[in-house]
Amino acid sequence: MFNYKITIQYDGSRYSGWQKQGNTGNTIQKKFEDILYKLAGYEVEIHGSGRTDAGVHANGQVANFKLREDYGTDVLIEYINKYLPDDINVLSIERVDEKFHARLYASKKRYIYRIDNGQKQNVFTRKYTFHCPEKLDIDAMRKAADIYVGEHDFKAFCDNKHMKKSTVRTVYKVNIVQDENELIICYEGNGFLYHMVRLMTGALIDVGLHKMSCSELCDILENKDRGRLNNLAPAQGLILDEVWY
Amino acid sequence: MFNYKITIQYDGSRYSGWQKQGNTGNTIQKKFEDILYKLAGYEVEIHGSGRTDAGVHANGQVANFKLREDYGTDVLIEYINKYLPDDINVLSIERVDEKFHARLYASKKRYIYRIDNGQKQNVFTRKYTFHCPEKLDIDAMRKAADIYVGEHDFKAFCDNKHMKKSTVRTVYKVNIVQDENELIICYEGNGFLYHMVRLMTGALIDVGLHKMSCSELCDILENKDRGRLNNLAPAQGLILDEVWY
Repeated sequence: MFNYKITIQYDGSRYSGWQKQGNTGNTIQKKFEDILYKLAGYEVEIHGSGRTDAGVHANGQVANFKLREDYGTDVLIEYINKYLPDDINVLSIERVDEKFHARLYASKKRYIYRIDNGQKQNVFTRKYTFHCPEKLDIDAMRKAADIYVGEHDFKAFCDNKHMKKSTVRTVYKVNIVQDENELIICYEGNGFLYHMVRLMTGALIDVGLHKMSCSELCDILENKDRGRLNNLAPAQGLILDEVWY
Repeated sequence: MFNYKITIQYDGSRYSGWQKQGNTGNTIQKKFEDILYKLAGYEVEIHGSGRTDAGVHANGQVANFKLREDYGTDVLIEYINKYLPDDINVLSIERVDEKFHARLYASKKRYIYRIDNGQKQNVFTRKYTFHCPEKLDIDAMRKAADIYVGEHDFKAFCDNKHMKKSTVRTVYKVNIVQDENELIICYEGNGFLYHMVRLMTGALIDVGLHKMSCSELCDILENKDRGRLNNLAPAQGLILDEVWY
């Protein structure tokens, strides 16, 4: 079998997320598997580095799939892009070792969360930002962001109630950059739990609005207390930016 | 009368341009005049710094309108933004001298034309770029861009056949910047004729594709020969970026 690693950009606005839901649902995974079936003539499974929720975007989602024939990467990228709609774009394809698996081999990920802090949302980025017109205390948000950095049990920031595996993750850094009216929060870590980035962002926004203090946030993290997090930041501001192997 | 200068951002994708077409047509001007009528209770005319074509965007269109009452600018901006759809955004409003007129007083304008030169169009900017996947000779385009700079009769670059006024304009500069797969052409001048930026861009693209030489372009400009320009660059890549007074 020939194993291909693929880097994908998508505007998640009109999708029910990455992961296939049986044969229904407008998902990114299904879009790819339908095209690969058309190409190969047999069922091909595509493995993403992780699921993205409905409405979440990707600038560099990584996935892999196996084919029985050795298609050239140029032929493959052209074929797939031809059949993809204009809100999904294959940026690159490369042949990789047969053992490579996009989810299992991922060592680091970067997510970006964009907040539009202008009075009215910027018309050009309105589908890719969360609009928060209230004044945000950015210094307080930066202090709160430091709480996340390091190895912690992020159980409070996980919405998978049936999670049987460890909820310990390492966050390498959380940077907050201001660019005119936009606030860009950049998260890097060895992995992220279900809803983790959106819950972390929601808490940072609450700190910025003085609805939550840094010590409360510390307490929630230490006590793994999901119930005290009231703000799941909307999907549309979130972008899976890059995945490392 | 109280005269207000207003700076506006819009995604032109679903509009028939700036200028009102009687009572029909989905135009930016009409959107504003409808809201101002609702506010004031009488007809208010809004004067744009210039018309933008159907599908053209604006990052900083300027306009002015007069009201009989002195509304505070904070009240005005909030009222207008509340009734505008999410693809039009008032960035600022200020009170100006009664003589100020957004078109007549404009001394300089900047237009930006964005070309996506990637194999497939970037999903996040796809509504604001023209997609040209063919290889472009950027050095040749930069040489051609210099031809436009200075005071010239741009009759060849004007699609208004009934133009009675002078077609002489001064172009201060034309910069071409490469940013990953995107080519950004930035035009500054004292004024631009109907279709002028799109025709200039179309010719630059033809030079970049080696379909036209720099000397042909010189010849067309000198001879005011509109008939030899075959490429009107699509509206969706064009943005009115800033207007000076």
